[in-house]
Amino acid sequence: MSGKARVKVGIIGSQFAADIHAEAFRLMPDEAEVVAVASPTPGHAEKLAKKYDIPRVFTDYKQMLAEDDIEMVTIAAPNFLHARMTIDAANAGKHVVCEKPLCITLEEADLMIETCKRKGVLLMYAEELFVAPKYVRAKEMAEQGAFGKVYMVKQCEKHFGPHAPWFWDVEQSGGGVFMDMGCHGIAFCYWFLNRPKIKNVYCQMDTYVHGGRTKGEDNSICILEFANGAVGIIEDGWARRGGMDDRIEVYGEGGVTYANLLMGNALPTYSEYGYGYAVEKAPTTKGWTYPVFEELWNYGFPQEMHHFARCVRGREEPQATGEDGRVVQEILYAGYQSAGTGRKIELPFRPEGVKTPIELWLNKNSRA
Amino acid sequence: MSGKARVKVGIIGSQFAADIHAEAFRLMPDEAEVVAVASPTPGHAEKLAKKYDIPRVFTDYKQMLAEDDIEMVTIAAPNFLHARMTIDAANAGKHVVCEKPLCITLEEADLMIETCKRKGVLLMYAEELFVAPKYVRAKEMAEQGAFGKVYMVKQCEKHFGPHAPWFWDVEQSGGGVFMDMGCHGIAFCYWFLNRPKIKNVYCQMDTYVHGGRTKGEDNSICILEFANGAVGIIEDGWARRGGMDDRIEVYGEGGVTYANLLMGNALPTYSEYGYGYAVEKAPTTKGWTYPVFEELWNYGFPQEMHHFARCVRGREEPQATGEDGRVVQEILYAGYQSAGTGRKIELPFRPEGVKTPIELWLNKNSRA
Amino acid sequence: MSGKARVKVGIIGSQFAADIHAEAFRLMPDEAEVVAVASPTPGHAEKLAKKYDIPRVFTDYKQMLAEDDIEMVTIAAPNFLHARMTIDAANAGKHVVCEKPLCITLEEADLMIETCKRKGVLLMYAEELFVAPKYVRAKEMAEQGAFGKVYMVKQCEKHFGPHAPWFWDVEQSGGGVFMDMGCHGIAFCYWFLNRPKIKNVYCQMDTYVHGGRTKGEDNSICILEFANGAVGIIEDGWARRGGMDDRIEVYGEGGVTYANLLMGNALPTYSEYGYGYAVEKAPTTKGWTYPVFEELWNYGFPQEMHHFARCVRGREEPQATGEDGRVVQEILYAGYQSAGTGRKIELPFRPEGVKTPIELWLNKNSRA
Amino acid sequence: MSGKARVKVGIIGSQFAADIHAEAFRLMPDEAEVVAVASPTPGHAEKLAKKYDIPRVFTDYKQMLAEDDIEMVTIAAPNFLHARMTIDAANAGKHVVCEKPLCITLEEADLMIETCKRKGVLLMYAEELFVAPKYVRAKEMAEQGAFGKVYMVKQCEKHFGPHAPWFWDVEQSGGGVFMDMGCHGIAFCYWFLNRPKIKNVYCQMDTYVHGGRTKGEDNSICILEFANGAVGIIEDGWARRGGMDDRIEVYGEGGVTYANLLMGNALPTYSEYGYGYAVEKAPTTKGWTYPVFEELWNYGFPQEMHHFARCVRGREEPQATGEDGRVVQEILYAGYQSAGTGRKIELPFRPEGVKTPIELWLNKNSRA
Repeated sequence: MSGKARVKVGIIGSQFAADIHAEAFRLMPDEAEVVAVASPTPGHAEKLAKKYDIPRVFTDYKQMLAEDDIEMVTIAAPNFLHARMTIDAANAGKHVVCEKPLCITLEEADLMIETCKRKGVLLMYAEELFVAPKYVRAKEMAEQGAFGKVYMVKQCEKHFGPHAPWFWDVEQSGGGVFMDMGCHGIAFCYWFLNRPKIKNVYCQMDTYVHGGRTKGEDNSICILEFANGAVGIIEDGWARRGGMDDRIEVYGEGGVTYANLLMGNALPTYSEYGYGYAVEKAPTTKGWTYPVFEELWNYGFPQEMHHFARCVRGREEPQATGEDGRVVQEILYAGYQSAGTGRKIELPFRPEGVKTPIELWLNKNSRA
Repeated sequence: MSGKARVKVGIIGSQFAADIHAEAFRLMPDEAEVVAVASPTPGHAEKLAKKYDIPRVFTDYKQMLAEDDIEMVTIAAPNFLHARMTIDAANAGKHVVCEKPLCITLEEADLMIETCKRKGVLLMYAEELFVAPKYVRAKEMAEQGAFGKVYMVKQCEKHFGPHAPWFWDVEQSGGGVFMDMGCHGIAFCYWFLNRPKIKNVYCQMDTYVHGGRTKGEDNSICILEFANGAVGIIEDGWARRGGMDDRIEVYGEGGVTYANLLMGNALPTYSEYGYGYAVEKAPTTKGWTYPVFEELWNYGFPQEMHHFARCVRGREEPQATGEDGRVVQEILYAGYQSAGTGRKIELPFRPEGVKTPIELWLNKNSRA
Repeated sequence: MSGKARVKVGIIGSQFAADIHAEAFRLMPDEAEVVAVASPTPGHAEKLAKKYDIPRVFTDYKQMLAEDDIEMVTIAAPNFLHARMTIDAANAGKHVVCEKPLCITLEEADLMIETCKRKGVLLMYAEELFVAPKYVRAKEMAEQGAFGKVYMVKQCEKHFGPHAPWFWDVEQSGGGVFMDMGCHGIAFCYWFLNRPKIKNVYCQMDTYVHGGRTKGEDNSICILEFANGAVGIIEDGWARRGGMDDRIEVYGEGGVTYANLLMGNALPTYSEYGYGYAVEKAPTTKGWTYPVFEELWNYGFPQEMHHFARCVRGREEPQATGEDGRVVQEILYAGYQSAGTGRKIELPFRPEGVKTPIELWLNKNSRA
Repeated sequence: MSGKARVKVGIIGSQFAADIHAEAFRLMPDEAEVVAVASPTPGHAEKLAKKYDIPRVFTDYKQMLAEDDIEMVTIAAPNFLHARMTIDAANAGKHVVCEKPLCITLEEADLMIETCKRKGVLLMYAEELFVAPKYVRAKEMAEQGAFGKVYMVKQCEKHFGPHAPWFWDVEQSGGGVFMDMGCHGIAFCYWFLNRPKIKNVYCQMDTYVHGGRTKGEDNSICILEFANGAVGIIEDGWARRGGMDDRIEVYGEGGVTYANLLMGNALPTYSEYGYGYAVEKAPTTKGWTYPVFEELWNYGFPQEMHHFARCVRGREEPQATGEDGRVVQEILYAGYQSAGTGRKIELPFRPEGVKTPIELWLNKNSRA
């Protein structure tokens, strides 16, 4: 295959995240093209294929993996399927872009990394905050010395509940909002501080609003202490009204910066009549709203997929790998253990025989 | 003494907090007047007296307490003197307004409360956040049902170091930034949620920037779990550049609000030449700055002193009492214990023979 | 009457502005007390009296003027009554606080000023922007040299229509939004720049939204050129949705500042359920809103009435006088003339036999 | 030439705007490539060529126009050269992208349009606000009915002086800040309202700060009345400190929106030490600053050049043409005439024998 041709991509999935993948490739078309989509529910893959003009459609992703010309697959399926799909793709010789979180268990994470390595394919971890332009700008300033030594980094992501019903089921998701969105914050702090060793984790979480439909936590606070002396604070919520909120704060001995990805970039708007769309999870477009502009670009999704395609071509090194996802996974485990015991958990932490991270909280939790 | 005359007030102290007291009484003059000030350092009391036209000046506060007509004293002295001064004032039959934190040890707190009760004087706790107009507004909305059930309250206060050198000395202050400013956030969450029982406390703290001049922590994060099912998050910093930052966030199942006391109320301003004053701890008035307006009024200081004078006259009930201060003190102890052990501390918590709260962190801390 | 007693005040009016007056006196009670209220509509004065505990009630304001102990009256009646009431009050020996705009015609303005002078009473002009704390802060910075020479000042005030139906009737109001709110901006620029001579006026206005119920303009832009070389820009609207908007911008060769009285001071809030009150003219309290706090205080109303009472006692000099109101009135005339002719109008400008300022626009306007 | 190959581009100029052009093409490389640059000053073209890896370099742009493979040239030269260069390029059969303003005189504008039409090449007008993502978003909402009928649109652009010394010389620039940046606001309002006929223009301008080095105005306010009943307000300044300011406001009978391109998208940042770059014209990176992120993308420059390349390939119709630039040019003339006479100028307006628009203000201005 010529090094100059665009990377041929197959998407596994057809819903929220799959749509973002397809749109991301459409927005930056020069390095990759989506040639196939696979989704088991009849009609779903067709719908996405039609919307984005994708030529090939499959209900069985394994059939898609059999297509010779596909070089890279992106996995946009429920968490509990990530490991199996990644391993199947690797065995078929495809490079893998896996959505966050990497998987459910640490055993899965290890197997995914090992299999991809053995098969000589890239395992790329879809953490878009590493390329979100506003957050990248904060990191650039940090690296230019704007803040001196950075001692605290915060990230929060909050809205009023997940994109798809399977998130409510902890068997499919592995956990609640800490699993769903905490993984972003953990990765963010780790990346922002240039991947120092993480010493320990403390977590506080509870189910404040959505107890009627999930055993998972809908609000979490997580504190990471890093070996370089810095601290990370990660706040996540499925219980915050008013549309998506995604922010960071960076504190150094010599300065501070704040970046607000959505409301902070928005056009404060009042409308008596409403309009098309404000922002992810916004409840309405009437009254005062904070419509975002170029939402995907501001999150960094097109840039991310562009980057991954270039990695497949050997032009760039992956910024987010299976190893990064594995670090996040370990913190997720330790976080639930901390929330369950009320103690700071020292790392490394590797519990045996735990099927889902959230068990560590649910089982020890005295709320029962 | 006529119930109609203005309450005669004596101030103990002459520096930062004493100046605020004097100015607060000046701004709302109809219920109280400052007639005396006491400060041991020669010249200090005179200076304040001259600035605010205060007739009587003392170097020994005990002499001031002997003045018959003084009905209320305000204590604006280092933390370790609060208990002694309060007890002396109570024994002299004066009502007491004590600056935050109430004292150093729980034993002191108990003795202060008991003595004032026995002597029939009010022990009023100077927590101005209970009357800060913007925060009061948030509480009003909460009580009008704007947010439904409130499940999380956050308060933070951050700047680049304390007002006076004695804060750096943990023997005089009892602790670092958690002691100095965490007491505000603890009181705020407790008050905002209408004083539910506090179940437990977790704290993370460290000395990131000012290790050269203090053993005290200069950054802290504190998590309170309340018996009503809500959580409080309190962040404090002496390591944040750029001038004072004081904010709250309130999360309910039905809504959210944000209040920013300083930058959020300020006039975004660029000046090539500078001007008089921007905000507490602002490093400069050149370039972009966020000057506040009517700073004391926006903090609620005049309203607070006005309220306390009315309490002395029996027209209002104190909104902040020694008991409130005692609750805060217990949390401070438990917070340092938590930071020292890496565990959530269940309340009630009453360690024996601990001279300063910070010992609980310093002694067990493995940082040595 | 003793110079120490509180100034006794009578309010003429019982609606929006009268309520603000009464509440303003209640908030700062040490210099004045409201002892009477007069309103011709049966029951109206009683209602206000009951709300604010005002002892005396009149349907005929002239009867109220006959009360010997009343020293100061405040006029909160439709514009076309201002002159007559002021003159009656002056003839009764009462000091007068007149709401904005001062009156309808320049002849009235001259007569009001002259009568008050002749009778030895103060004619005080109720322009609260001169005491609005945030705007006062901007002026302080300007005077401290923050901006160097100030070359441009802007003020805007916008909402979705007036407080009372009589504003729609240009016979009673004398004009539309430029008359109703432009008077604030004119006064503001004039005051901020320390009352330089005004050279000329240009105005653009139209009726964009409310043409169905008024002949008056509902949007206006006004440009003032001052003899000191600065320019003032005044924007007003009765056609802006989303609640009251009141802002200033100050530009100097050495800096710039922005002050936003309402949204800029507010608590950004999302509520699913709503709450009591957000801000003047806010259409709802559900969804995202910008609730203000201590609205009257932030406008400066209590401070203003406090100041006027002190002027009556001779302790302060009026900051806003009939002469200021007369300057504003002249600009209103010139502004309508400019809008009608499409030309910059040089001052002084004194048209003869013009009953209401807006005629100058309506009559010459080619829109018919 | 194959319709599939990338459009080959030559840039005329090597300074501020030329650098933006080169960077814009680099950021979106799939439709065009810069193959040549021409600049008369020895070494200048080489420098840009080196920075952006541009293979061919010329000191005489006419030699560059002789290159057969170049299909499109972009003109980033002083205003007074636009017409001559455009006509030369058209005569050489090249499509033209001309920087704003289109030229100096209306005669030039007519000749440019006519020549390009005759030679069958596109005359594309580089008004990036038509593609600035945040402003595009505002227009989308307007078109979705968010604001009902839009009656007022405002745009302002302000900083502390132009990019290059030649702007100070009105012979080369044709005018001051109204010419330099007012052209953006005029185009913006016209485009936002879907190009209604413009009825008349009023302008106020003066030289407040930079009188020592230019005869041109450094502050201007412009009011456009449109045939559809809407009004446009355009404010520009070379006299505003603190870094570039670029904002719009859109008012409809049913709503309002605000978009702030720079500070509104920025990361509020405090730095004791400084960092690389904050924003165009920012005086410093120390203290509080508002660093932008992905500045060119947020302005829309890469999208604009991408669009123009697609126009050359016939895949899109130009959004901004010579005719648009000609409309702007007429307004510039009328604006200076208005400022010179203090009158609203009715359109069409075509003065004879006027060499530069600013003459109309300078000659009639009584400031002398």
